[in-house]
Amino acid sequence: MAEPMMIFAAQEYRDRVAKLQMGMAAQGLDALLLTTPADVFYVTGFLTRFWASPARPWFVIVPVADDPVAVIPSIGAALMGQTWLHDIRTWDAPDPRDDGISLLTGALADLVPAQGQIGVPMGLETHLRMPLADYDLLRAQLAPRQIVDATACIQRIREVKSEAEINKIRESCAIAGRAFARVPEFAAEGQPLSCVFRDFQIALLTEGADWVSYVAGGAGPDGYGDVISPAGPQPLRRGDILMLDTGAVKNGYFCDFDRNFAIGRASDTARRAHAALWQATEDTLALLRPGWRACDVHAALCANLQKYGATPSGGRLGHGLGITLTEWPSFTPLDETPLREGMVLTLEPGCVTGDGRIMVHEENIVLRKDGAEVLSPRASHELPEITA
Amino acid sequence: MAEPMMIFAAQEYRDRVAKLQMGMAAQGLDALLLTTPADVFYVTGFLTRFWASPARPWFVIVPVADDPVAVIPSIGAALMGQTWLHDIRTWDAPDPRDDGISLLTGALADLVPAQGQIGVPMGLETHLRMPLADYDLLRAQLAPRQIVDATACIQRIREVKSEAEINKIRESCAIAGRAFARVPEFAAEGQPLSCVFRDFQIALLTEGADWVSYVAGGAGPDGYGDVISPAGPQPLRRGDILMLDTGAVKNGYFCDFDRNFAIGRASDTARRAHAALWQATEDTLALLRPGWRACDVHAALCANLQKYGATPSGGRLGHGLGITLTEWPSFTPLDETPLREGMVLTLEPGCVTGDGRIMVHEENIVLRKDGAEVLSPRASHELPEITA
Repeated sequence: MAEPMMIFAAQEYRDRVAKLQMGMAAQGLDALLLTTPADVFYVTGFLTRFWASPARPWFVIVPVADDPVAVIPSIGAALMGQTWLHDIRTWDAPDPRDDGISLLTGALADLVPAQGQIGVPMGLETHLRMPLADYDLLRAQLAPRQIVDATACIQRIREVKSEAEINKIRESCAIAGRAFARVPEFAAEGQPLSCVFRDFQIALLTEGADWVSYVAGGAGPDGYGDVISPAGPQPLRRGDILMLDTGAVKNGYFCDFDRNFAIGRASDTARRAHAALWQATEDTLALLRPGWRACDVHAALCANLQKYGATPSGGRLGHGLGITLTEWPSFTPLDETPLREGMVLTLEPGCVTGDGRIMVHEENIVLRKDGAEVLSPRASHELPEITA
Repeated sequence: MAEPMMIFAAQEYRDRVAKLQMGMAAQGLDALLLTTPADVFYVTGFLTRFWASPARPWFVIVPVADDPVAVIPSIGAALMGQTWLHDIRTWDAPDPRDDGISLLTGALADLVPAQGQIGVPMGLETHLRMPLADYDLLRAQLAPRQIVDATACIQRIREVKSEAEINKIRESCAIAGRAFARVPEFAAEGQPLSCVFRDFQIALLTEGADWVSYVAGGAGPDGYGDVISPAGPQPLRRGDILMLDTGAVKNGYFCDFDRNFAIGRASDTARRAHAALWQATEDTLALLRPGWRACDVHAALCANLQKYGATPSGGRLGHGLGITLTEWPSFTPLDETPLREGMVLTLEPGCVTGDGRIMVHEENIVLRKDGAEVLSPRASHELPEITA
């Protein structure tokens, strides 16, 4: 049963930890404490859907000058034992008296001097996946050690993907591309949206997804009102624009892109909107380079949409992508994160097509030294029509 | 597009909030602050897979004597607008300067007097889904208001399901039951475990699941080494016991049960273990009543396993179930939570079948006044053999 964990060779994880440790040393951190599925997977390769159970906390400590230590519920010992980690400490969770906190305190106290600092991600787009009362207890027990924010330390490393990671994301994108190509097989006038969502998930699995963490979308005349809803029983109608958006997972890596389909012949409004979204993406892709800031992408997409006669929608127009459905940075007017070679990103312009209606369009890219390489099979310039 | 949110009539949510408010009043809480998908769904009916994106925090405030207030990213305004909530406040997230914290502080400061208390779940099986730095800021801005632990307040209400909720869980169980019945169609000697997992997810969707939040399992001679792993490419072999475990979701409600299959003829060891697991479950089901504590179920399952010659495995032997894959309480020796009428629970005995190998068996039940009603289609007493 060793195969599930062999997504990457151990050296991939060692390289990641070495980079984290350089950042930690620069910030004066003696250890990182990680608690989320993504951070734990990033450092160890520990991949399980068991995170869906909120019952137990899981901890990985990255010391500044040694290999990571896992402090985890015993139910995960066998699976963590298949990773490259050699120091795995377990307790029988959930334990209402002490759910791993003594074990974690002991491990951190051994690794971090009394005057030392422990980094925990505390900033935008992070959360701490452990009970708050236990965190307060941990902090008190570890004093005078300080727990400080390590968001930047993690994010500056995770946001630049290795070629091995890029290949995994490309594979997820290819799976979704094949599933999108099959949408005309099951989306037709009269078909309930809930059935379309179900068949789309089946197509994603059939085409090779390990699992489907995200499907959303919408359907309506010339556009849709929102892009995060589950599907209801309402049937597709002639004149609807159907949008499907997915985060399918292969080997722990996500894609995140969407596609639009006209049910019957597309109206001029919808065709023009789709063309503007496609061309604004194309023009932005041609210009994008390392050194741009996240807000520059937002500005470029808005300017290009306007150039093609479209009114940009609100909200962010793309983001990072990798081991969660969305990662930082965000393409908003406020995010000044510099874009760097190796970042995997989504470009997701949206435009207003009517009262309370929008259309969106999304592609996944990796930023290379000389510009964007598109990882998702590029959408067709013409809005596809399902006229069967 | 109103249908997706109409999982229950508004009265169901009003009843829940009224019960929460009684508990809050008893504890002296002026408001609850909720941040997780399950707590937000429970109070509002807001259901979306968009939680897969860690980019944005979402907040719902339950005042002690008024309707809930949603403080959410504007991307969720349309969907939240379909729920019974009428006070929905939004900001453009993610905002690196102020990601909803001013808006949330203002809302809480208006609802809670300066000497008041705000409850947040902080205990076992909880976490706070917002950035820690923002939580510290919120707490400082709200002072002298106190933020205190509200775990019990939430859990004592959520753990007892309404008939409407029980019907939803029964529906999820029925879907999984039909999918399990189809396992012999796609699990056979030589088939890679990863394909079996994929086909099982397809079967769950085909049988009516909205999505599949959890599939795990294992396969090995006379049992498996762990129960939380993703599947690898290794093929099923004659003599393997295949176990599949799923949390399929319908209308936001989970099932959580597993089934075992022998690939080829089952060995005596595997047949005896399955019979002991089945009979220990049967005997415990016959005795279980409201008033038992969670630890009593653990003791009964262990005693019954031993009565039938099996060695109980470690870890918890069942848990609560509902709007997450697992809920409290936990059937461990340490959990003294009283079991009450209306609780939906899983019974999940496990036994050791060899060196590093176990078999597990799981059913979902609702606890009635006079005993357990089984919600999952009861496993067959005989271990099924796939001999095609």
